[in-house]
Order: sequence, then C-alpha cells, then structure tokens
Amino acid sequence: MNDKKVKVGLMGLGTVGTGVIRLVEGHRDDLTQQTGLQIEIAKVLVQNPGKERSISVQSDLMTTDPYNLLHDPEIDVIVEVMGGIDNTLEYILEALNQGKHVVTANKDLMAIHGSTILKKAAEKNCDVFYEASVAGGIPILRALVEGFSSDRITKMMGIVNGTTNYILTKMSQEGASYEDVLKEAQALGYAEADPTSDVGGLDAARKMSILSTLGFRAGVNLEDVSCKGITGVTSEDIDYGKKLGYVMKLIGIAQQNDELIDVSVEPTLVKQSHPLASVNGVFNEVYVYGEAVGETMFYGPGAGELPTATAVVSDLVTVVKNIKLGVNGRGMVAPYKVKKLKTDEEILGKYFIRLIVDDKSGVLSQVTKTLADHDVSLEQVMQQPYNNGSKAELIMVTHTSSKKSILSILKQLEESDYVNEVKSFYRVEGGE
Amino acid sequence: MNDKKVKVGLMGLGTVGTGVIRLVEGHRDDLTQQTGLQIEIAKVLVQNPGKERSISVQSDLMTTDPYNLLHDPEIDVIVEVMGGIDNTLEYILEALNQGKHVVTANKDLMAIHGSTILKKAAEKNCDVFYEASVAGGIPILRALVEGFSSDRITKMMGIVNGTTNYILTKMSQEGASYEDVLKEAQALGYAEADPTSDVGGLDAARKMSILSTLGFRAGVNLEDVSCKGITGVTSEDIDYGKKLGYVMKLIGIAQQNDELIDVSVEPTLVKQSHPLASVNGVFNEVYVYGEAVGETMFYGPGAGELPTATAVVSDLVTVVKNIKLGVNGRGMVAPYKVKKLKTDEEILGKYFIRLIVDDKSGVLSQVTKTLADHDVSLEQVMQQPYNNGSKAELIMVTHTSSKKSILSILKQLEESDYVNEVKSFYRVEGGE
Repeated sequence: MNDKKVKVGLMGLGTVGTGVIRLVEGHRDDLTQQTGLQIEIAKVLVQNPGKERSISVQSDLMTTDPYNLLHDPEIDVIVEVMGGIDNTLEYILEALNQGKHVVTANKDLMAIHGSTILKKAAEKNCDVFYEASVAGGIPILRALVEGFSSDRITKMMGIVNGTTNYILTKMSQEGASYEDVLKEAQALGYAEADPTSDVGGLDAARKMSILSTLGFRAGVNLEDVSCKGITGVTSEDIDYGKKLGYVMKLIGIAQQNDELIDVSVEPTLVKQSHPLASVNGVFNEVYVYGEAVGETMFYGPGAGELPTATAVVSDLVTVVKNIKLGVNGRGMVAPYKVKKLKTDEEILGKYFIRLIVDDKSGVLSQVTKTLADHDVSLEQVMQQPYNNGSKAELIMVTHTSSKKSILSILKQLEESDYVNEVKSFYRVEGGE
Repeated sequence: MNDKKVKVGLMGLGTVGTGVIRLVEGHRDDLTQQTGLQIEIAKVLVQNPGKERSISVQSDLMTTDPYNLLHDPEIDVIVEVMGGIDNTLEYILEALNQGKHVVTANKDLMAIHGSTILKKAAEKNCDVFYEASVAGGIPILRALVEGFSSDRITKMMGIVNGTTNYILTKMSQEGASYEDVLKEAQALGYAEADPTSDVGGLDAARKMSILSTLGFRAGVNLEDVSCKGITGVTSEDIDYGKKLGYVMKLIGIAQQNDELIDVSVEPTLVKQSHPLASVNGVFNEVYVYGEAVGETMFYGPGAGELPTATAVVSDLVTVVKNIKLGVNGRGMVAPYKVKKLKTDEEILGKYFIRLIVDDKSGVLSQVTKTLADHDVSLEQVMQQPYNNGSKAELIMVTHTSSKKSILSILKQLEESDYVNEVKSFYRVEGGE
C-alpha cells in the first residue's frame, strides 16, 4: 500500500520552500500514515543552486529551469512557493496542462488569476489548493469552503497583513513616526526593501478578494476591493484615536447584505475592548459571521517559514489523499453567485473625522450643521487648541451613516471658509 | 445533474433537529449548487408526533419507530441529533450495517463508542462525521484533521462547555454562590434539570477525549481524561483568584510531549490578560498549538439551535459531495499512534493553594519549608486574617512543578499540626 510514491516538484526554495522540505522530511511517517502514500520531493526549482542554505538539498534535485519540473512526466504535484505573477501564471497553467496538481501559497497570483487557474484545473481534473495564500497558518479557507458550507456568510473582518500590523503596533506603542518604524521593520526583515504592496494595502486587498470569493461564493476581483494603505497614518491620528478609546489597525472588511457586497481594506480605528485591537505583531485574526452560526473567529500566525509551510503541506496531504482515492479536481465549487457591489450610498459605517478650524464662535455649530444636513449625527466630539491656540482642532466620531454622506460632508467641509483643513478620516469598528 | 436526490433520515427533532430542517430548507439552492445533488429530509424520528413545534413538518414524514428510518432502503444518510448512548449506539451501528452514512452531533456517544462506530464505518465504506459534537459551530475537528494534517499538535486548551462557563461567569461577576447561579441557569434554560454531566466536567471531558484522539492521532478514551467539575468552586476561591490576577474557568487541556499525553478538565485560574479569561457565557474558545504552526485559536458559539445545525449540515454537505464522487468511507484516518499517558510526576503546572492555618509565628515558614522540601517555589503569597483573626488564611501560587509534588505537599499539609485545613487548590494557566 505504501510503495507508490507521489512525486512533488517544488518551485522556490526561499523561506516557505525551506519549511516545506523540513515538514515533508521531518514528518515523513505521519504523512505516509495519513495518506497511505509516500511523498517525495523530486525536483526543486531555484535561482541559484550554489547558494548557502539552512537545509541541505541534494544538488542533483536542484534546477534553474522550470520546465525540468513542468515537463517531467514523473512529477504528480507542483508546489509553487516562488511568488511572482506573470511567469508564475504561465508555469502553473502549463503544470495543469500536463495534468499535474498544484498547491500554491501565492495570493498575488490567486487574487488576480484565480478564476483562470481554477477553470483550467476543472478542465484537466486537477486539484488546485491555496490555503497558505491567506492568513498563513490559519486554516481559514477550509473553514469557509467546508466548515460553513451550510451557512451564508454575512461578514468577514480581520487583520490579514503582518507587516502593517507590526508597523501600526510599534507606532502606537512608541509614538514613533511611520517613516522611522518602517525603516526599523525593514532592518529587522519584517518589511520588504520595497514595502509598497504591504503598506499600500494591496497585499491585504488580495487576501480579502480571495476570502470574499470563497465566503460569498461570488467572483470578487481585486479591483472590486476598495483599498487604502497606511502610508498616510500619522502618530497624531493614532493618539487622538487612543484618547477616544480606539486602536489604529489595517482592517479588511467584506460584507454582504441582501446579495449586495462591499469589500474594503483601510486603516480603521478599532474599539480598544475589541479583540482585534490586541492583535500584535505578525499575527492575523479573522472574524467570520454567518447567518446561522453567528460570530466565529480564527487566530494564528499570518506568515513565517513553518506556519506557512504547514498550510502548504496540509494542502499537499489533501492532494495526495485525493490521488489515492482517484478524485482529484472534483471537490471544488466554482463561485456560482452573481456579484453585485454596493454603492457608496449602501455602504454604512461609523467614521472618525479630524479637522483644523478657526478658533472662533460659531464654527462648531457650522460643522455640526453640515453633518446634520446630511443626517449624520455624532457619537463623540473633542475640541482642542491647535498651533498655539491660533486654530482649533476638532475630532469627531459619527454614528452609523452612509459612506456617500461622509464623502460629501468632507467635500463640503473642505470647500467651506470655516474649515482650514480636513486632516484625516478613518472608518471606526468594534463598538455597538 | 441535479435530479438525483439524497434522502436523509433525521433522528431527533429537538433544538438541533429543528435547526437542521431550517438550514436544509432555507439554504436549499446553495446546498444543491455546492453538492450537485438535492437533499431531502425523507423521514424524521420523533418521540411525540403530535407535539407543537416551531417549524411545520409534514405529519407523514414523522415516525416514532427508528427502524422505519434504519430499514428504509431509500434513505442514504442518517443524521442523529437525538442524543443518548446505548440505544443510539445500536441505531447508528444498524444504520452503518445497512450501508447508510452517518452524521451525528452526539459527543457522549462518540467519546465512549467512537472507535467501535468508526471501525464499523470503515468496514462498510460509510462516512461518519461528527463536527457538531465539539464546540458547536466552530469547525475545529476539520481544522485538526485537515488543516493541521502536516503538523504535530502539542497542546489544545480551551473552554468547551457553555453551561459551566455561564455559571462561573455569573459567580465571578455577581459574587453569587454556585447553588444560586445554578438555579438561575436552570430557570433560564442554560443548565439542564439534571446538570450533573455539565457541572461535573463530564461533558467537557468527552469533548477533550474527541479532540485529543483527532489532534494526537491516538485513541484517547474518556477514562484517560482526568476530570474535576465546578461543584466545589466557592465564591471565596473566585475572589482570591481575582485578587491575584486570575479568572476562574473550567478549562480542558490536552498536552503531548515526547509522545507522552495528558488530558484533563478542571476548574482553572486563568491569568486575567489571557483571552480565555474574557470568554463569557455560552461561547467556546480553543487554542491549538502545533510544533510548526505555533499558536492558533478558534472561537465561536459552543451550542444553540442554528450554530450546532451549521456543523451538522456542513458535515451532511461533505457526505453528499462524497456520494456524488463515490468516495464515502475512505477519507478518514484511524488513530495510528500508541497512546502513552503521563504519570503525575510528568504532569507539570502551576497551582493555586488556599490553606487555613494557626495565626502564630513560624507557620508560614513551616508551610514554605514543606514546599521547598518538594522543590516547589512560590510565585505569589498572600496572608490574611480568617474567622475574626483567630486563624489566618494563606493563599499561594506556585511556580511550575509536578502534579505529584503538589499532591504530596497537600497530603503532608493536611496531616500536619500547623495547617487546619486545605480549603482548595486549582491549576493556574495563561501566565509566563
């Protein structure tokens, strides 16, 4: 029973690839017991075979040519942990064309080309699994697809990017500026040399598009996700948030009501008492709300060599079990719902607004009248002197209102003669 | 593709059974889309067909004879949500004998007879799924079996019984006695008329035996779980715990180091800053630690009509998908590891100890010498007058030590002439 081997072509031997080899080798007996088959890493695609590595890999397994893996008829499964988008798409599609199953940790690829890849996989009766692409070691995709298959997901909300969470945590704890903390994070390896996709919110937006496609069973593309990064977050914003009882986090939210969807990633002030406010460093936490199940939550490491590798190798175990059963490529459910996005009028939320105004009588009344004209009322207001008292700073948290109202209020305030500057505005979450 | 129907025999139409019908009917289109087959509730076993119910069920579907379901050749799947052990075991085994797949929410049954049932299922190529048996709406069994298939679980720790959590939460918040809160919980329906299995810890122990069998891949039986309930917890214990920074919770812990296992359920003082300390009411929360993945956590409703029904119907969806693929009964992994339980010497922990002693000089020194003789040191000590100052009360939290040392210290203290009474001792969790 255990003599047939499943041969794996591993594309990429960076952090995650190293972890995959460690797990497949270190847990060999366990994996064989569970799958009934032996798993063998048959070839490894690397950029530089001569590079020093923290694990030893037989040099004759290594190759720099992806087609040595893709066109090897003995290889059953491609595990893609090299990253990248355009070339990688080509390789993955070729792997599927060759009848090979695919496990990938590549959220960029799946968020942009997921539907193309899954369509090709269905055509070729191949498995494609990508648990590691969202929230690293947390088995959240399985929970959405299988655990909640009987329910209707109404909301998913969480912290899904470790780099920005690390930066915001540090800024909040140390009162340091965004630029200083970013430099420190880069020096420590918590942020990439080019941090754009993390700090711009794109990485989180890609994950939210994957989560919403699976959770809502509708094809939510990356361009459907409204996305704002943390580059504009100042330590003043964080401080004022604190004074009002909030913590600044980069939060992804996907909501669905009455078949209307909105998905966004933006810096958000989270109520201090909400568990998301206490998620520090590189951990991820995702709340999932279902019509029937109510509130559930999943927490764990969002990245890292071994946590991410557990998700990759657990997917590999599923592929190997399917090979054993002869049922690859038939377990997936393509999104079958028609996606309808909410308009700004239909998107509801609370907002934090920070203004610089002239310090003279009547201004507060004019500002609040502008809000009232749009039917927006306030939950909290705080005023204090600004610039040695020559101006005043006005910080407000609204009650729930439409995004459209807030945007037109901000426009009107910006154009008014009693407001000097709209310093910032943020979504607010986690209260009543 | 959608014309074949999968016929379900539903055993039990209480809270969960009602929820199952609501979900199967309310989400009919979704379930058909996902499985490619229609699901029909063909027969329902009830005790009293004439009873008023919150949903309408055609009277000709109802029967009081289980064999009307078990021997109906048209029924493909038995969904068992009636509870009970001995009779229910007989029915489930007969269902499997008849080649029917089984979904059950019955933790009592699975904790005691799980291995018999799974063996029969394997023999008959039938599916048996029981996600709803542990932690209601949280898909934790799937996470252990599939999400972490590539990892080695080292520890699972959590709150898995809502009734005792409700009672301890109330006692802690209101300073009320166990007896008073229990009566209130019974009146509100949060505790059963006979609360023994909840308050005695048995319900939680059954769940921990299921979790450890799956997580450790070794057959952990109910009798392997060391179990202590909350009936002896006093409001004084809760108060002293609070003063030292702890919250009283009924905690299940399953640990595995060097292939040695210990599993227990007992009232435990949890550090106030640990998230488990803030889990209130009927919610469940389970931490899962893996060698590779590190710390993860799952949170959600532990009971309730619809949350539990989501788990049952999601299992049903898996069975129906397997029927469609023709692969029932082949996805499970029987426990393959040899279970070795830790001795008391190998079980390590911190402990809270509360003593009544004579209020005279030298007693504290004698008590601490007894501890030191067993190599146990203290993290916190608090002394205060007792019984109008005629005695003193001594409350201590130890550093990590073996359970064996603690038990022999307690015995020695009890027999000594300087200690009047060992009032209580509890495990302590969640600190460094």
